[in-house]
Amino acid sequence: MSVTSAQGFVAGGIASGIKPDGVADLAVVATADARAVAAAGVFTTNLACAAPVQVSRSHLANGQAAAIVLSSGNANAATGEQGRVDARRMAELTGAGLGCDATDVLVCSTGLIGYFMPMAALESGIPDLCRNLNGGTAAADAILTTDTVRKEATASVGTTTAVVGGLAKGAAMLSPAIATMLAALTTDVDVDPAVLQAALGEAVASTFNQLLVDGSMSTNDTVLVLANGASGVTVSGRAEVHALTDALTDVCGSLAEQMARDAEGATKIVRLHVRGARTAEEARRAARGVAGSQLVQCSFNGEDPYWGRILSELGASGAGFDPETVTITYNGVIACRNGIDAGTEAAALAAVMAETDIEVVCDLAAGHGEATMLFTDLSHVYIDENRGTS
Amino acid sequence: MSVTSAQGFVAGGIASGIKPDGVADLAVVATADARAVAAAGVFTTNLACAAPVQVSRSHLANGQAAAIVLSSGNANAATGEQGRVDARRMAELTGAGLGCDATDVLVCSTGLIGYFMPMAALESGIPDLCRNLNGGTAAADAILTTDTVRKEATASVGTTTAVVGGLAKGAAMLSPAIATMLAALTTDVDVDPAVLQAALGEAVASTFNQLLVDGSMSTNDTVLVLANGASGVTVSGRAEVHALTDALTDVCGSLAEQMARDAEGATKIVRLHVRGARTAEEARRAARGVAGSQLVQCSFNGEDPYWGRILSELGASGAGFDPETVTITYNGVIACRNGIDAGTEAAALAAVMAETDIEVVCDLAAGHGEATMLFTDLSHVYIDENRGTS
Repeated sequence: MSVTSAQGFVAGGIASGIKPDGVADLAVVATADARAVAAAGVFTTNLACAAPVQVSRSHLANGQAAAIVLSSGNANAATGEQGRVDARRMAELTGAGLGCDATDVLVCSTGLIGYFMPMAALESGIPDLCRNLNGGTAAADAILTTDTVRKEATASVGTTTAVVGGLAKGAAMLSPAIATMLAALTTDVDVDPAVLQAALGEAVASTFNQLLVDGSMSTNDTVLVLANGASGVTVSGRAEVHALTDALTDVCGSLAEQMARDAEGATKIVRLHVRGARTAEEARRAARGVAGSQLVQCSFNGEDPYWGRILSELGASGAGFDPETVTITYNGVIACRNGIDAGTEAAALAAVMAETDIEVVCDLAAGHGEATMLFTDLSHVYIDENRGTS
Repeated sequence: MSVTSAQGFVAGGIASGIKPDGVADLAVVATADARAVAAAGVFTTNLACAAPVQVSRSHLANGQAAAIVLSSGNANAATGEQGRVDARRMAELTGAGLGCDATDVLVCSTGLIGYFMPMAALESGIPDLCRNLNGGTAAADAILTTDTVRKEATASVGTTTAVVGGLAKGAAMLSPAIATMLAALTTDVDVDPAVLQAALGEAVASTFNQLLVDGSMSTNDTVLVLANGASGVTVSGRAEVHALTDALTDVCGSLAEQMARDAEGATKIVRLHVRGARTAEEARRAARGVAGSQLVQCSFNGEDPYWGRILSELGASGAGFDPETVTITYNGVIACRNGIDAGTEAAALAAVMAETDIEVVCDLAAGHGEATMLFTDLSHVYIDENRGTS
């Protein structure tokens, strides 16, 4: 159940000193033999993307990588040319420590924006870590920021012996396209980089991209996967690719749900389905409008089945439908029918709202477009976490 | 300094019983002689617009109105055909009480979504109110919901004796296009309805539409103006239209700022200017991205000059620019230069952040597009106000 569940991968994590309080803040995930293997990545589309994103994109251009170095506490974002120099140096130190080319190392950082990396910590920390790769769980611990629990997942590739494993961090700045987070995945299948990239893209679209905590898209979002072929299982035929995509989706889906459950201050996990939209795109717009609404999020925090706010956000989303045909249910209990109060007993809805996991279905009755989104409530704790940087 | 500052208008407000606690909840603004005069309106673009919006749009189709009836405590939204019947009945009761046609009465409601109007209260309340029009200030009090202070404004039309007066409510669900609120304006100029509509549209675009509290666009947003010509001042020439537009803009701008200052839980008022965008539209997208960010709003709540989050939201907005040419200042103190920390002393920025009014200028250095937005911080109080409907 970790990023080293797939054969032929090593990982580790330590406290290098990026974080002032001696908490683990540096991780490496790599092929056991430091060999460059097929690799793929999905990155933030934020124009102000961080230096490590810029460097990783460049190092991944050939579809190959041997290692991923991940740091937490400092995002190395809004750091200009010095940031790129520092990110490349992190790759160089990792390559030297593991015995691979610097250009085969991908770099991920998460934390505060606008501060230069404390490179002294990394100059000693990366070599120390490469000498003592203490396992995938230590790596998963080392990339957390405001997360309260580590996030790991594994899945089998179809009925084969091959697996996909992964670790992730993310507890705020979560927004679709892509959810704000870092994730590093490994798999021991043998697969072409282009196929791996397509499979990862598909997995991310239906998992991390459907998660919204606060609607902010970060400067550092990254999902990476390395595939080393160590299981002897080859993925090339249509069914094999399908099985790999499913396994990647399982792992990404599990990690996304772990993020939602650990979202800053969240007390509720809402799985929202919009259906009956004219198109899938309109369903996504509508779902995003509801999930991103502070007012809707506050209602869930207060366990208030205030479907009127959901209808209002659907109406403001730009999706086309007749408000007087809309149905809204909470865990199967109908609250709104044909755009007005369904007359359901308050006690029935109150019981649903007291649960932690709430599935909301909005049927627009305008077509066949569907979309799903996972979001959380908005609480005092979220504000407290984000009021200050210290 | 009220909606009756313009000559020839009457107004009043009472507690009709819509709100259970005996608080004022019903207002009327009308021409003193109940004559239909030139009128104009700007309404929410929410597809799930409330019944009173639907009815007012229809009653305003001929560019004429004699009165506006406004209620608070119940939005009469998501109420289907019964909602329209009730809104039309409110117009009918008001017309009967004042002596004008029901179709010359415009209706505005604000409050909870999804509940039928308590018409028994209005059946007696509207006639009572029409018999005792106790003034513009009483009207301004009667339309408040979670507002803590009444909102009124007046302005002169150029150097003439004519004035524009207005009242408004709004303390949450504030979002551009249009800010979620009700406003009723009056003026004693003589003006063609089409000219009045154009002038009002322009005034709203640069005031209410630049105000964002939580990014939610309500089902009930409405801005109305009646122009009765009582001052004898005619508006038709270019300079006169300009003066009227300015006066409407002054009143709407003052009301919008009063809303921001009274925004639920707000402790800071941030006036954000994005300039140097490639186009005005990209500047607006960028400004809206920053203003609507929960993370940015939390930073202001914590008095944290965390410019990195602003840069991140600019980058995520879809506007095109080079992040490494961006400058960000807080009340003139530079925090970010060329996309990285400007090295300003922390004490200088801390002093700025301790102020209530903070002007943030983001220069993208990519062109000449500009946009302004007024927003507030996100606090515990906002959540508490919006957790439940009771």
